[in-house]
Amino acid sequence: MAEPSNADMRTDATTSIVGYRLRRAQLRVFQKFLAVFEALKLRPAEYSVLVLIDDNPGRKQTEIAEVLGIKRANFVTLVHGLEERGLVERIPSLEDKRANALHLTTAGQRFLADAQARHAALEAEIVDRLGGTEARAQLLALLDRLI
Amino acid sequence: MAEPSNADMRTDATTSIVGYRLRRAQLRVFQKFLAVFEALKLRPAEYSVLVLIDDNPGRKQTEIAEVLGIKRANFVTLVHGLEERGLVERIPSLEDKRANALHLTTAGQRFLADAQARHAALEAEIVDRLGGTEARAQLLALLDRLI
Repeated sequence: MAEPSNADMRTDATTSIVGYRLRRAQLRVFQKFLAVFEALKLRPAEYSVLVLIDDNPGRKQTEIAEVLGIKRANFVTLVHGLEERGLVERIPSLEDKRANALHLTTAGQRFLADAQARHAALEAEIVDRLGGTEARAQLLALLDRLI
Repeated sequence: MAEPSNADMRTDATTSIVGYRLRRAQLRVFQKFLAVFEALKLRPAEYSVLVLIDDNPGRKQTEIAEVLGIKRANFVTLVHGLEERGLVERIPSLEDKRANALHLTTAGQRFLADAQARHAALEAEIVDRLGGTEARAQLLALLDRLI
């Protein structure tokens, strides 16, 4: 008797778990991201941080970390890495001497522009796979209900 | 001058990244899962493995790992843990002496029935948040296009 192939497997109960499929899709999208951003040595979370600082210069570390849902300790390490690379600088806040305000350096702005161009190509590919911008908007709205 | 609050932050460019929102939603769903399954000391990947073995008894480790997209080394560790707990047993395959076929033990079947009851409640909550079973089907279909 030949062993049945994977195609014969009953996988419905597993693959229809929302969390399971979310995880598979997220890993897949992150793999693509990692492949595209390998040349820049940029991880997804670092990219989000750069985009958010660029859109909101001068914010405190705690504010940026909170919006992204990154734990304080992890965020400090992440920002330190970006600082070491000369992409981000912490400037003492005018309102709160104990806090540091985050800014992109000029090099950071140039770096981010390059990263955003690569990312735009990746998002276009995702839109393609989803079946158009409307499907993308639908997906984002559904995910939003879970967050 | 008061520091602007988080509500004033420009977050659109960040939160509309598909990968970003997938990750946030996945983490949120997994947090719920972990909270519900803490009492059973069961992680999401372990739950998927138990469900898949239950639906496909006697399959080889490599087959189960492949369907779930789990790396071989990680899968061996995971199955070893389930075996130590007496939930899974590896029985030498009849067709291939070098391979082991995976089965749930009787204790494993009872354990899984309990886990599935808890999981059903969790999925019902997710359906509620998404806005119904149709929205859930839509989400699963969209995620599928990414996988």
